[in-house]
Amino acid sequence: MGSVAFDTVETPEGRADEVLGGSATYFGFAASLFGPVGLVGVVGDDFPDAVLEMLRARGIDTRGVQRLPGRTFRWAGRYVEDMNRRETTGLELNVFAQFDPALPEAYRGGGYCFLANGTPSIQHRVIDQLRSPKLVFADTMNHWIAEAPDEVRSVLGRVDGVIINDEEAMMLSGRHNLVAAARAVAALGPRIVVLKKGAHGCLLAIGDAIYPLPAFPLEEVHDPTGAGDSFAGAFMGTVAKADDASVATLRRAALYGTLVASFSCEAFGVERLRGLTLREVEARGKLFAEMLRL
Amino acid sequence: MGSVAFDTVETPEGRADEVLGGSATYFGFAASLFGPVGLVGVVGDDFPDAVLEMLRARGIDTRGVQRLPGRTFRWAGRYVEDMNRRETTGLELNVFAQFDPALPEAYRGGGYCFLANGTPSIQHRVIDQLRSPKLVFADTMNHWIAEAPDEVRSVLGRVDGVIINDEEAMMLSGRHNLVAAARAVAALGPRIVVLKKGAHGCLLAIGDAIYPLPAFPLEEVHDPTGAGDSFAGAFMGTVAKADDASVATLRRAALYGTLVASFSCEAFGVERLRGLTLREVEARGKLFAEMLRL
Repeated sequence: MGSVAFDTVETPEGRADEVLGGSATYFGFAASLFGPVGLVGVVGDDFPDAVLEMLRARGIDTRGVQRLPGRTFRWAGRYVEDMNRRETTGLELNVFAQFDPALPEAYRGGGYCFLANGTPSIQHRVIDQLRSPKLVFADTMNHWIAEAPDEVRSVLGRVDGVIINDEEAMMLSGRHNLVAAARAVAALGPRIVVLKKGAHGCLLAIGDAIYPLPAFPLEEVHDPTGAGDSFAGAFMGTVAKADDASVATLRRAALYGTLVASFSCEAFGVERLRGLTLREVEARGKLFAEMLRL
Repeated sequence: MGSVAFDTVETPEGRADEVLGGSATYFGFAASLFGPVGLVGVVGDDFPDAVLEMLRARGIDTRGVQRLPGRTFRWAGRYVEDMNRRETTGLELNVFAQFDPALPEAYRGGGYCFLANGTPSIQHRVIDQLRSPKLVFADTMNHWIAEAPDEVRSVLGRVDGVIINDEEAMMLSGRHNLVAAARAVAALGPRIVVLKKGAHGCLLAIGDAIYPLPAFPLEEVHDPTGAGDSFAGAFMGTVAKADDASVATLRRAALYGTLVASFSCEAFGVERLRGLTLREVEARGKLFAEMLRL
């Protein structure tokens, strides 16, 4: 569950206007590398059927995508110099403001669920519709942590894991040390905490154990938009494919998240993810393992 | 070659007044884990003989430490919240302003040399005194890159490698992408480029090959002062001990640099490094390898 959007993005490498974006979209492309994935979101009456068709051709189930009268969610942003920081230059929630997710019956029972951005109340409504889910992970945003901290915490109390940015973890925990922040977030409920650090990689915390991973080094980053959601899609896809949540699987999930996120940055929008194959991801994984061999 | 100083440091974890510090000091403690190391620096007449004796007891040769009339270099700084950033609150160069390094004869021939902070002209004077060195590495600082960019570049043209902060590499290269920045720095001369990223680890660039390493995750950082110089000391110590500059040795050097830097952060000043043993470093290395195993 997340947003489906049209993004306008400016980076030092170029610009893209009204390209397909949104957290659920990036997540879906990434997760589809590993197996079936169902997308829950909302689009307006301006959203082309051909794009939904393209998603389905990729193996992304779109039965959970509602169409409402009005315009699709629009986001515009700019990355300056250091690609780790961005500013939002335009935001139109449009139909996303009326979004009330109704999960198709086929999605409700015993699966793997990821709650991408959205109000905490929408995240709650998705959880309410799940029956004995195997694993529920959530993301959240600085906006909600600032505006609705108690609601964010109540969501965290209902999930198995979070995949959030380092700054969000600092905001949630009041701790600047990331290991301490991860443990403080875990104390709010989720037993698995993944902190994303952009170009600096990620930190996976499971119980007392901490596993750091650098990012795959890229010489050219064209557009970091959606890298975090791509990470989450590959992470959840890996876990769902293995159908277990062992430490070994979660570590492999963080690795695949890292790899797929790196591909996502190589072109604007979902351009690089659209045609990406698991074979390419695994080839990069071999390179990465060689780089990291101690 | 570098500074020997008294530091006054404030971090969110506490405060230390006029404790032993300086780049050469941290470097020396770290390098001494791996074999003999000779320190080239300057102290004032206020510097206790007992401290020089303590350095020698650690296996650090102090024949290269000059004593000049006047006060020893003083530095004061404060780390705020995010331990990756610090502000200098006091700086007295004192005798360091008159420092004209004269290498003991025993240091001049065919060894491994690290040029820590200091003016580019002082770094040049050290290089001038070396005869067929096996490997020369340098550090530099944002101050010199801003004030004397041509002199910094002329030093870089004479060294085999650099160990610098990510921000210094960005300043030197004008590139924000760290892989691109490392390559641009390499194009200035040094064929081995190590970019230190504080709590985010490091990036080792040798020719076209890039090796990222995360930092060893610490839940409590008491004082990051000297972590970069400790990294450099362990890096050069590892290379000198192996007496080769193969890719495998340089990668192991970056690993030992990472590990020793993490110990350095665990207490104020050189407190943790003073009693550190190679056995402790290797035990942490085993944990780290397990954390990173892909």
